[in-house]
Amino acid sequence: MTTPQFKQLRRSYGFDEVAIVPGEVTINPDQTNIDLPIGDFTFSIPILASAMDAVTNVDFAIRYGKLGGLAVLNLDGVQTRYDDPEEVLGQIAGASNSKVTALMQKVYSAPIKENLIAERIQAIKKGGVVCAVSAVPANTKRLAPIAEAAGADIFAVQSSITSARHLSKSVRGLIFEELCQAVSMPIMVGNCCSYGACLELMRTGIHGVLVGVGPGAACTTRQVLGVGIPQITATIDCAAARDLYLKESGRYVPIITDGGFRNGGDLCKAFAAGADAVMLGSIFAQTEGAPGKGYHWGMSHPHPTLPRGTRIKVGTTGTLEQVLFGPTSVTDGSQNLVGALRTAMGVCGAASIAEMHNAEMVIAPAITTEGKSWQISQS
Amino acid sequence: MTTPQFKQLRRSYGFDEVAIVPGEVTINPDQTNIDLPIGDFTFSIPILASAMDAVTNVDFAIRYGKLGGLAVLNLDGVQTRYDDPEEVLGQIAGASNSKVTALMQKVYSAPIKENLIAERIQAIKKGGVVCAVSAVPANTKRLAPIAEAAGADIFAVQSSITSARHLSKSVRGLIFEELCQAVSMPIMVGNCCSYGACLELMRTGIHGVLVGVGPGAACTTRQVLGVGIPQITATIDCAAARDLYLKESGRYVPIITDGGFRNGGDLCKAFAAGADAVMLGSIFAQTEGAPGKGYHWGMSHPHPTLPRGTRIKVGTTGTLEQVLFGPTSVTDGSQNLVGALRTAMGVCGAASIAEMHNAEMVIAPAITTEGKSWQISQS
Amino acid sequence: MTTPQFKQLRRSYGFDEVAIVPGEVTINPDQTNIDLPIGDFTFSIPILASAMDAVTNVDFAIRYGKLGGLAVLNLDGVQTRYDDPEEVLGQIAGASNSKVTALMQKVYSAPIKENLIAERIQAIKKGGVVCAVSAVPANTKRLAPIAEAAGADIFAVQSSITSARHLSKSVRGLIFEELCQAVSMPIMVGNCCSYGACLELMRTGIHGVLVGVGPGAACTTRQVLGVGIPQITATIDCAAARDLYLKESGRYVPIITDGGFRNGGDLCKAFAAGADAVMLGSIFAQTEGAPGKGYHWGMSHPHPTLPRGTRIKVGTTGTLEQVLFGPTSVTDGSQNLVGALRTAMGVCGAASIAEMHNAEMVIAPAITTEGKSWQISQS
Amino acid sequence: MTTPQFKQLRRSYGFDEVAIVPGEVTINPDQTNIDLPIGDFTFSIPILASAMDAVTNVDFAIRYGKLGGLAVLNLDGVQTRYDDPEEVLGQIAGASNSKVTALMQKVYSAPIKENLIAERIQAIKKGGVVCAVSAVPANTKRLAPIAEAAGADIFAVQSSITSARHLSKSVRGLIFEELCQAVSMPIMVGNCCSYGACLELMRTGIHGVLVGVGPGAACTTRQVLGVGIPQITATIDCAAARDLYLKESGRYVPIITDGGFRNGGDLCKAFAAGADAVMLGSIFAQTEGAPGKGYHWGMSHPHPTLPRGTRIKVGTTGTLEQVLFGPTSVTDGSQNLVGALRTAMGVCGAASIAEMHNAEMVIAPAITTEGKSWQISQS
Repeated sequence: MTTPQFKQLRRSYGFDEVAIVPGEVTINPDQTNIDLPIGDFTFSIPILASAMDAVTNVDFAIRYGKLGGLAVLNLDGVQTRYDDPEEVLGQIAGASNSKVTALMQKVYSAPIKENLIAERIQAIKKGGVVCAVSAVPANTKRLAPIAEAAGADIFAVQSSITSARHLSKSVRGLIFEELCQAVSMPIMVGNCCSYGACLELMRTGIHGVLVGVGPGAACTTRQVLGVGIPQITATIDCAAARDLYLKESGRYVPIITDGGFRNGGDLCKAFAAGADAVMLGSIFAQTEGAPGKGYHWGMSHPHPTLPRGTRIKVGTTGTLEQVLFGPTSVTDGSQNLVGALRTAMGVCGAASIAEMHNAEMVIAPAITTEGKSWQISQS
Repeated sequence: MTTPQFKQLRRSYGFDEVAIVPGEVTINPDQTNIDLPIGDFTFSIPILASAMDAVTNVDFAIRYGKLGGLAVLNLDGVQTRYDDPEEVLGQIAGASNSKVTALMQKVYSAPIKENLIAERIQAIKKGGVVCAVSAVPANTKRLAPIAEAAGADIFAVQSSITSARHLSKSVRGLIFEELCQAVSMPIMVGNCCSYGACLELMRTGIHGVLVGVGPGAACTTRQVLGVGIPQITATIDCAAARDLYLKESGRYVPIITDGGFRNGGDLCKAFAAGADAVMLGSIFAQTEGAPGKGYHWGMSHPHPTLPRGTRIKVGTTGTLEQVLFGPTSVTDGSQNLVGALRTAMGVCGAASIAEMHNAEMVIAPAITTEGKSWQISQS
Repeated sequence: MTTPQFKQLRRSYGFDEVAIVPGEVTINPDQTNIDLPIGDFTFSIPILASAMDAVTNVDFAIRYGKLGGLAVLNLDGVQTRYDDPEEVLGQIAGASNSKVTALMQKVYSAPIKENLIAERIQAIKKGGVVCAVSAVPANTKRLAPIAEAAGADIFAVQSSITSARHLSKSVRGLIFEELCQAVSMPIMVGNCCSYGACLELMRTGIHGVLVGVGPGAACTTRQVLGVGIPQITATIDCAAARDLYLKESGRYVPIITDGGFRNGGDLCKAFAAGADAVMLGSIFAQTEGAPGKGYHWGMSHPHPTLPRGTRIKVGTTGTLEQVLFGPTSVTDGSQNLVGALRTAMGVCGAASIAEMHNAEMVIAPAITTEGKSWQISQS
Repeated sequence: MTTPQFKQLRRSYGFDEVAIVPGEVTINPDQTNIDLPIGDFTFSIPILASAMDAVTNVDFAIRYGKLGGLAVLNLDGVQTRYDDPEEVLGQIAGASNSKVTALMQKVYSAPIKENLIAERIQAIKKGGVVCAVSAVPANTKRLAPIAEAAGADIFAVQSSITSARHLSKSVRGLIFEELCQAVSMPIMVGNCCSYGACLELMRTGIHGVLVGVGPGAACTTRQVLGVGIPQITATIDCAAARDLYLKESGRYVPIITDGGFRNGGDLCKAFAAGADAVMLGSIFAQTEGAPGKGYHWGMSHPHPTLPRGTRIKVGTTGTLEQVLFGPTSVTDGSQNLVGALRTAMGVCGAASIAEMHNAEMVIAPAITTEGKSWQISQS
């Protein structure tokens, strides 16, 4: 009798399930280097702000760039569909829970105005910072040249799930090799979440990969499609692809873990898992003056027949400076993210992000189980 | 000293615990083929509607068949026991929680009227769709010939747990080899949940196997008997049996994962685990005009001394068309199931259900842990 | 450098984490044999009632014996300390939560009256049933001969944790080899929960082993001492000891899984794990007329300085007959336990308890995760 | 093609996830020896009281020392910054939740007064007990000689995470080899949580290692930094380091598991995992007369820009004597900790702490799953 072949399942891990192990050597936090190079640019904060309408507008991009980070402006969102995007953002913030998805489906069906692309990019450049913009794959061939002509510095091609090869009989898909030749800006592509898909993307010549499918708070991809990988495993897999690609090509392509972060602990774990940078949405949507006005939603472009983004109330927790650098009086890990990263690197004896990739991590039960149970048993 | 022999336990997995990994290649959803062949019939939707009284009556079977799916009418339920089943369904919907099990025990003790079998089948056929009916093993020898004579196209033999060999001293049990010769309709049999049991069923010559014991929302088999296997492992096991049986016989017998689904994500995972089709109960009981009138219960025939079915309030979430095809404004995965399946196949680069069987899956913590914790930590 | 030696931890499993897999062959429930032999006695129900004051008094022992089971009367409890135990039981049932532990410490400090031992045993024998009694190891040498003289049929030596060798400098401990010679009744000993401890107990010549440390609802051993093994692993381990001992001695010593049961599903799993019988406390304390009057507590003799038993309100769910045999209208697995066992054996194709020991089990997530999540997501 | 190298993650375990297995031999609790040697001192209770301001002041240190234990006075906290520390402790206890972290940041920015160090130490010595004090690494070179001159007996160098080698370009860090020569008191160092870090610390010549990073109730290190190891694995790892170091050096350096304890069960598990002693904070902060006045906070010195300690309300549960020795009427494992340890050692047949290190432990689901589910299912 033939032996049965059962499908095999590999175990994957999310932020909640791992913890960083302190090193045998420690180092002062002020001696850590956390610079992030993308193409020829170098950023002093290895944290990107998401290309989401509740996070990045012109004002936020300038403020964040001046602090050392990079915010990505979404070219498929309200910023390029409306002359006055603030009014539309106000409508979304003011809608009731039952009507907001329908409202967003309508808001995002307005056409993209090409003149607004140039207007927004030039406004950011006028602020004196590096300008990064993004578009979905279907719009990239059209919008990338317009963005470059307007002065954009970095281009991100981003959808829920993007692969190096997309099969379609209706249209000839986006070919990343061609895009890299058509524009001279560094190209970041995402999202992907597995070793093979990441390796194929890097081999097309692009300059950064966004990692993460389905883990974010404002994303219901996993509930709707069953698709997604927890971020620690996704990052570990894509880091292995990056390291292999470096060996085969001599070229280092940074990976940016995107989505699912809740606090500084999660951020530190992403770097220990192999990330060169992280991309945050919810945490920035909570800062004072963020365009979401206390709300956040995951997808720039809710699908008209199968929406997967949910608007959630995130509130306002502090200034952008506090979230990045403190000082803070809260102890839940939502503020002073840069300080947290440097401190974690210090206890791991990691002088650079590259050394942080070598920090040991263990699989550990979620902190709620152990850290909080005493209080629970007392109540 | 002799070495002790400890009983070994194998790990099994449910929907909550796995996630689909996107492929290296992606494909447009409109290029996916999701046809389901059963015997000589082909259905354009690989989703069956359960042979449960809260789901399928004549009206539902016709409406669903016209949309491309297959609903199974229960010959052991209220449809064949009462001239006016709607009145009885209304009583069940109106009963209090404390009295409903006793009421159902009484309702299902009324005799099956053979004339109603023909009446219901002919009404469905008059609607212009394929007619599938079901009976428990004990009633099959009597009811299958009656159903075939009345024009039924497909017959399902279904109980909580059905095996190819049932030992009884009182009566000679149902022999599937004999049934396949006695009637010419395709025979589906279920439910089973393990490699060995599924393989034995296929070897009797039947044409489809229903997979799933104990996972459904309206089924308390596991609490009462301790029996059941989570659906991902059950599907993987039975898919291995199907593939082996194909090799040994040259005959492809589809497996239909039945029970425990909560959203489109679960449905997509069942196909990635190896299902050729799925069978849904609760989700259809929630559609407008479903016979359960906002309620659902799992077993057609509550046992008089050891009932295992529970009536639960499921409410009404939308039309049958919305649940299948959208458009929808909800983002919880309860609507546009066909769109979700085609989209998931697209991100896995699967052009057919057979290719979807090869999609990678990982073991992942339940989405509530990671996807929702941000909100929780904010509240 | 020497290689470090890390302490190894073995994974263990509780009821919640496993499920029984249906067999390839099934059998009619009415063809299953569930007889339990202990010494020369045979019981038609393989379920013992605990030697706990909220469960077994003279009345319950007689009623349960007439139905085919065996209840064990606690010789260290209120039945032998008070002429009118019903009055004391009423005080415990009526005490407030904050005062009940202190009350019980006082109640159980009254002396055991030897004349009451004979009185209770003779009352049970007068009821026409087999009489089993229990004592803690420290009282056994004194009470066992008295019990035998009064007509007791079976003696249980029971404490939280009992080993074959107990080291003490103050007194010479109980030697089971000597006890087996001193009295002619079958001797059951417990509780133990591991392979080695069970094997040592069997080698002393005793006739049954009670399995289970720390899993019960009314027992806080694990919280106070950190000691305990989940019942599935405890049962699997002790079943391996029993099977090895049978090979080395030719003598079959039944194991009785004791504690932690919540429903029929758990009970069925214990047999599939290797139990010859189970011992229930909470479930019987919930029957009409049980001595606990709607309450239950775990230890007969709360320790004066380190109590580990908690009184919990269990309510009254039905008659003893309903709990054992049905008929029932509840679907939570709390009634018709014998029917559930026979049905589970049927779907596993097990004609006897010995065959049920061979049923396959899988490690599966707790039923609440999958079976109930649909309702949760709807609420 | 090169094989990808994925980062490996080791599984770690916390108190909740393990249970102690009773032994084949048992022993009377009164025959167990639980002495703890540190340097030339021997304590009759192997439980240290934390160097936290809510736990140890002069009064507590004397009371606890007379009972046989060792409390550590924090030289970086309010005791050495304020002439009247009780007044400051009252302010912290009285502050609102929203203002307490900011208040503590201010309170702990007052300077340390060297004269108060001598004053507190002499007061403790006058009480007739062994005096242990602690400081963070940055203050140790300055404070340790002062403490020794004032009569301190034992010195603890303690911060969240301490390593044998700390890299800093600004100042020459603390060298433990030099400290051990500079003072003649036994030196304890912590906290660490891994095999390698513990081994390096022992090799510097110090006399005790405090084990535990991030598990405590009042510590949010893991949420803020992602750093920490559950205590069972941390203890197992450091015990392996201790055993190896004993082999290579002939010197036995005790390890003290510090943090995360909720009850006697956790305490017993730490010893079974390899601890020579445990250090408790929350549990002592709950005793009558503790300096925290019903509150507890984790870090003596909240970081001005990245605080990780949270003040939590712990209440008052009983006297120090009750917590240590009983008698008690509560059954949740919060009192009679010494009785619990001796009892657990008894059921494991362990006559000494060294023998308790050999007790078997299993990985087991948290007690809430099994022990409490019956009540839940009844409510």
